[in-house]
Amino acid sequence: MSHSPDQRSAPSQAARHLRFPHVVIVGKYHAPGSRNAVEEIAHFLHDEGCDVSLERDTALNTGLLQYPALSVPDMGQNCDLALVVGGDGTMLGIGRQLARYGVPMVGINQGRLGFITDVPFESYRETLQPILRGEFEEDARALMAASVWRDGRCVFEATALNDVVVNRGGAASMIELRVEVDGHFVANQRADGLIIASPTGSTAYALSAGGPLLHPAIDGWVMVPIAPHTLSNRPVVLPARSEIAVEIVSGKDASANFDMQSLTSLLHGDRIVVRRSEHALRLLHPAGWNYFDTLRKKLHWNEGV
Amino acid sequence: MSHSPDQRSAPSQAARHLRFPHVVIVGKYHAPGSRNAVEEIAHFLHDEGCDVSLERDTALNTGLLQYPALSVPDMGQNCDLALVVGGDGTMLGIGRQLARYGVPMVGINQGRLGFITDVPFESYRETLQPILRGEFEEDARALMAASVWRDGRCVFEATALNDVVVNRGGAASMIELRVEVDGHFVANQRADGLIIASPTGSTAYALSAGGPLLHPAIDGWVMVPIAPHTLSNRPVVLPARSEIAVEIVSGKDASANFDMQSLTSLLHGDRIVVRRSEHALRLLHPAGWNYFDTLRKKLHWNEGV
Amino acid sequence: MSHSPDQRSAPSQAARHLRFPHVVIVGKYHAPGSRNAVEEIAHFLHDEGCDVSLERDTALNTGLLQYPALSVPDMGQNCDLALVVGGDGTMLGIGRQLARYGVPMVGINQGRLGFITDVPFESYRETLQPILRGEFEEDARALMAASVWRDGRCVFEATALNDVVVNRGGAASMIELRVEVDGHFVANQRADGLIIASPTGSTAYALSAGGPLLHPAIDGWVMVPIAPHTLSNRPVVLPARSEIAVEIVSGKDASANFDMQSLTSLLHGDRIVVRRSEHALRLLHPAGWNYFDTLRKKLHWNEGV
Amino acid sequence: MSHSPDQRSAPSQAARHLRFPHVVIVGKYHAPGSRNAVEEIAHFLHDEGCDVSLERDTALNTGLLQYPALSVPDMGQNCDLALVVGGDGTMLGIGRQLARYGVPMVGINQGRLGFITDVPFESYRETLQPILRGEFEEDARALMAASVWRDGRCVFEATALNDVVVNRGGAASMIELRVEVDGHFVANQRADGLIIASPTGSTAYALSAGGPLLHPAIDGWVMVPIAPHTLSNRPVVLPARSEIAVEIVSGKDASANFDMQSLTSLLHGDRIVVRRSEHALRLLHPAGWNYFDTLRKKLHWNEGV
Repeated sequence: MSHSPDQRSAPSQAARHLRFPHVVIVGKYHAPGSRNAVEEIAHFLHDEGCDVSLERDTALNTGLLQYPALSVPDMGQNCDLALVVGGDGTMLGIGRQLARYGVPMVGINQGRLGFITDVPFESYRETLQPILRGEFEEDARALMAASVWRDGRCVFEATALNDVVVNRGGAASMIELRVEVDGHFVANQRADGLIIASPTGSTAYALSAGGPLLHPAIDGWVMVPIAPHTLSNRPVVLPARSEIAVEIVSGKDASANFDMQSLTSLLHGDRIVVRRSEHALRLLHPAGWNYFDTLRKKLHWNEGV
Repeated sequence: MSHSPDQRSAPSQAARHLRFPHVVIVGKYHAPGSRNAVEEIAHFLHDEGCDVSLERDTALNTGLLQYPALSVPDMGQNCDLALVVGGDGTMLGIGRQLARYGVPMVGINQGRLGFITDVPFESYRETLQPILRGEFEEDARALMAASVWRDGRCVFEATALNDVVVNRGGAASMIELRVEVDGHFVANQRADGLIIASPTGSTAYALSAGGPLLHPAIDGWVMVPIAPHTLSNRPVVLPARSEIAVEIVSGKDASANFDMQSLTSLLHGDRIVVRRSEHALRLLHPAGWNYFDTLRKKLHWNEGV
Repeated sequence: MSHSPDQRSAPSQAARHLRFPHVVIVGKYHAPGSRNAVEEIAHFLHDEGCDVSLERDTALNTGLLQYPALSVPDMGQNCDLALVVGGDGTMLGIGRQLARYGVPMVGINQGRLGFITDVPFESYRETLQPILRGEFEEDARALMAASVWRDGRCVFEATALNDVVVNRGGAASMIELRVEVDGHFVANQRADGLIIASPTGSTAYALSAGGPLLHPAIDGWVMVPIAPHTLSNRPVVLPARSEIAVEIVSGKDASANFDMQSLTSLLHGDRIVVRRSEHALRLLHPAGWNYFDTLRKKLHWNEGV
Repeated sequence: MSHSPDQRSAPSQAARHLRFPHVVIVGKYHAPGSRNAVEEIAHFLHDEGCDVSLERDTALNTGLLQYPALSVPDMGQNCDLALVVGGDGTMLGIGRQLARYGVPMVGINQGRLGFITDVPFESYRETLQPILRGEFEEDARALMAASVWRDGRCVFEATALNDVVVNRGGAASMIELRVEVDGHFVANQRADGLIIASPTGSTAYALSAGGPLLHPAIDGWVMVPIAPHTLSNRPVVLPARSEIAVEIVSGKDASANFDMQSLTSLLHGDRIVVRRSEHALRLLHPAGWNYFDTLRKKLHWNEGV
């Protein structure tokens, strides 16, 4: 959890002494109340002496045009911190794109604690001030670099923070998948589908399908079959440095999902390949934050019966 | 397990003294070796004094035209026993149609023991002779009568022996379903889908999705969510005399499956209703047969590890 | 849900016109506040015109000596209704004993909704008045009659409302159990133990061990292995009219539990036999009560995430 | 998988050119046929030019007194390779002790493939010859260093290769455990017990209790609750570099198991602490060995239905 210096662009005079001189805000488009929240936080950051920008779509959708509106690459090259106002889904969407630039992120939720959006909007002032001063916990989340291969050619590439899912068509019966890890045959699985989830994604779909929780520091993915025909086809935790390949052996209308993004109409013989991305998401949490506190609250542990 | 007399049509002179004077054979179309198996069993039955017919498609596909070829209604009205040569899938397909006629069935498998096709082809002679004499175990399997309702009108009806499944579209995310039992609200479930399985279907898809096994004598269905968002959404065993209604609340491209048959493009507000059919499948097993023997073999219990 | 008349003893003049002329109250001993609750409810019942008694230990422990103190057999023979003030555990304890007398029961909880104690103390007046007038839902809960056999002799008998559990010693490794149903061999199971739960018990220990929920109207038990060595040893729902026998094949310090009551130091060859009791617990719920409402609240379904 | 040189003691002239000049054999005591197997392998190794010793108890139990009989420390200091003739249990027992000396091990099974004893006795010659020449796959298995603390003092220490298990007494009801990781509160768990398993142990008890499989290269443990009261208490994969502490909060007759070794009569307040041992087990496998091949065979994946 080192806090390496980030001085990416020439900050304004006022911002120069700050840990994060240039902060960009990303809002959840269309969410009611989002405009007010973004505006309020922007004022606050300005008052704290930060240079403030808005992510382009956030600017357009909120109509807050007094701040510079930046594209993701511009954010990546010029900003020192991204504040995301929304839920885990908003974080995932922007995080996947920002990871390559190494810009750290803070998630501010409006209403419900998220797994990775852990600053409640009500207390953003008290929480952000120490973070802006450099007091925070940093938590790196691994990303998956996924690709789809057909006839020896790569036909699709995507980055996923939560999971890569291969599944059967909606009205089809089981799919058969051949799994290889680093070129070694693992098994042919007949199932509704197969989830390969990161530690971040282990609290999402993979959990519903029977997978374990992976601590973010685990350098691995969990491979979880969905409704597998063979009862001993249990979830397997694999090293993230492995190359996992999933080949469509049979089944109609198979598709692959990379976080939210879908690739439909996969063909027999198509291979979905998952490796660890060279980039990771940098999440900042309030000082004293601990992963287990979030887990305990989100999963309603220790609430009596 | 009463063995009530069945004398549906005037049997031939030779067949008159038999427990099952008129036997129809149903084969698995397209299966290699099926023609020979059907022919051999037909000869055997003839030699045993039975009147022998073939199910129409079986006759056409095998080209065995020396026996009367009957439609399912004709089979239902005229035959005393149906011998099915194939796997559980073949049994399910014909069983759903024959159930209304009360014709008992015997399943003969070619190769692999099935849950309901438990006579190995190799030993069909030794096994069928006592059955033809009236020595057998009878086992009734409940069927589900399912219907789909849209805007207050029934738009689809089907019978299912294994299960009724409502599921999300292949590339879609979770579906939300509202479940009611006898008009009482049970829960809104967000999941990949929901399986309502009979005892017969409890060893199939429902088992893969985490459901329990239901003994065939249990007068109930098991409702099993597939990858439910809420971890406490566990399988529930419901009385078969209940009316279970599942309404599509949200989700794209939802579909419903009734054993093999699919109904795609369900709309929000559509209701899938499941009741117990007034008919049941009559399965005959060799004397001494026991459900647990089949279960133990199929699930590889007691094989050491 | 028929409401057959119950006129067991000569009621007082005032009570004669009531649906339940003589009501006995059972309290949770030692629970703080229990005395006040019992006293208040006793006054209320008296004001409603009922003859009121207290279960003997409840009388002794609360010191409320102005009401007749009855033993369980006396309660069974003379009372028309038992009000239990406490939690599910209190209901289970007294219910097991009262079932043979057919006295219906109502459960009043002080604080937390139970699966079978569904009248909140705060609203006992509004809830009990209609029940006393005969407006209620009745719900019968099957009981298990369990026995332990050693060398051909019955060495222990018990009744269980929740479950019969056979398990390994605390510091021992797996136990091996031979399971038979109606004399048919089912399987040898190596596991931490085996739970046979009624529908009532299906929401308790069996649920933790991976079992399904059984609707109270299901005439069956669920047999749930605890941490089974063989992954395909899944929960099985068995007809309650079956006789289930579990024999200790190997393992040290095995014990059997019948709801709360334990029998330790089982020997190899001991057989635990479970049948359906001829008695059932009669639970009365407020009119409009529905099983699924309780289930949904207790399992926190439909609470968002 | 580096193959660093091992030249621990002065080998005999003949053995000097060998990759493993001095090999010690460990047998499964009391196993029928064990003596012959050990003797045959000893002759073979001698013929291959190795100096051969026997583990002391193996020598005593087989009566093969023509080879030096070594204690574990002597084995550790003088031997270059340990051949274990037995099952996974035998490997675990001796492996825990040998790990500190860095002596690599090969497991030879007599009958049934083990997860870590993967050389069939029938083919030991063809398999061992290349290994003795230096052709093998090496696979390091992490060990847990466990300790039990009472009133601030360490009262017990043990090393575990498979798992550390804390569980309730046999006839007792649930235990309550407080879990901390690196001093952070995780949750209070009410359950039958809690398993902390290494990747090696993830195929054993933890799998039965619902845990995932962990690839041996995963630097983590999996914490699996046994029949947890709270349904969302799911298995969690934790970094092996963490310190996991489990405190007995309530429950009678709690005990802790470290692989096979038990510590009974734990008291409320006792803390079981698990860290990664500084030692790891060095397993050698035949060249071309792959973890997934073993997994697939042991779990009967890809065997049809």
